[in-house]
Amino acid sequence: MKSSTAKTPDTSRRSERSRTAILQASMELVGEVGYNKLTIEAIASRAGVGKQTIYRWWPSKAAVLLDAFTATVDSDEYANGIPDSGDLEADLKAVLRATVDEFTDPSFEAPYRALAIAGAADAELAAQFAERLTGPGFAVYERRLRAAQEAGQVDPDLDLSLATELLLGPFQQRWMTYYRPLTYEFVDDLVDMALRAFAPR
Amino acid sequence: MKSSTAKTPDTSRRSERSRTAILQASMELVGEVGYNKLTIEAIASRAGVGKQTIYRWWPSKAAVLLDAFTATVDSDEYANGIPDSGDLEADLKAVLRATVDEFTDPSFEAPYRALAIAGAADAELAAQFAERLTGPGFAVYERRLRAAQEAGQVDPDLDLSLATELLLGPFQQRWMTYYRPLTYEFVDDLVDMALRAFAPR
Repeated sequence: MKSSTAKTPDTSRRSERSRTAILQASMELVGEVGYNKLTIEAIASRAGVGKQTIYRWWPSKAAVLLDAFTATVDSDEYANGIPDSGDLEADLKAVLRATVDEFTDPSFEAPYRALAIAGAADAELAAQFAERLTGPGFAVYERRLRAAQEAGQVDPDLDLSLATELLLGPFQQRWMTYYRPLTYEFVDDLVDMALRAFAPR
Repeated sequence: MKSSTAKTPDTSRRSERSRTAILQASMELVGEVGYNKLTIEAIASRAGVGKQTIYRWWPSKAAVLLDAFTATVDSDEYANGIPDSGDLEADLKAVLRATVDEFTDPSFEAPYRALAIAGAADAELAAQFAERLTGPGFAVYERRLRAAQEAGQVDPDLDLSLATELLLGPFQQRWMTYYRPLTYEFVDDLVDMALRAFAPR
């Protein structure tokens, strides 16, 4: 079996295994020690690779983590978007309930919180998150709202970008500040209220 | 002039001056060095008081900062609430435009961000913020919305607590993540969209 790349299949497989191990190690570690104390050395040690392997592929720990998170989300909702059953309310509630599950799962929540805190303390890092994570994540909602708009279910003049902020901002606020618990009831009520703002006049 | 407290007026005035200096120093310093690197020693030094003076009144740097922020907000909007001109849209836009000014002023923004980041990293500290700052801050909006509800301008069944989250969550999300700029246009559009969700059916 011939490889179309310069590398042999064996090298590619080994590289892919190392890459996966590095991304997973970076997620685990940032959840355990926080962003500030995370080091390339510790990631290399946990992943069982040499430091130089990481530096060959990524310029910084921020770059490793961004790839790690992007890989997580690429593999599911970003690629497929929010399912369109024709029932906007049901679809939004389903995706937000799944998001509640995700944000109450420590294996996802702890690293994501560490990354969010690092971004809140560093506008340049935050701009990278916005481009790589928040922007694409919000775009998934905008696409589902656009489909509903084309189906005449939401106001034809609705600003879909602001509408997405209206839907996701309260979730983010509860999460980041621990203001109130993230529950199915909360996201159901949030969708109900937001849809009243989105409805055709 | 007799003092009703055990302290003489002179001691009271000196205490009040020290207290004000300590609160102000804590706000300045947390904006400069962040929450983690803030020390009681540095606050004492900046305020021109002894460390023991601080420890006599507050158990921790978190307690100092919470008092400092509470003093800031107590003195204006918390005490008086959102003005009620009878025009909910105008009143909400006015208070949120003032909030944009506040959050784009580094002397307020930097310490508040440092405190928010500390809370995001520490659920127990976050619970104190929620009780002392976020809760009372949100309650001010809930009161204004209740007045509008009583005037028949918003839905009689509207959940005022969730409505406040709908209004303030997107602001908080933009702010904490630097996702997009905090502008008058943003808050005006946010109020317009939220009011459609709040309207009587």
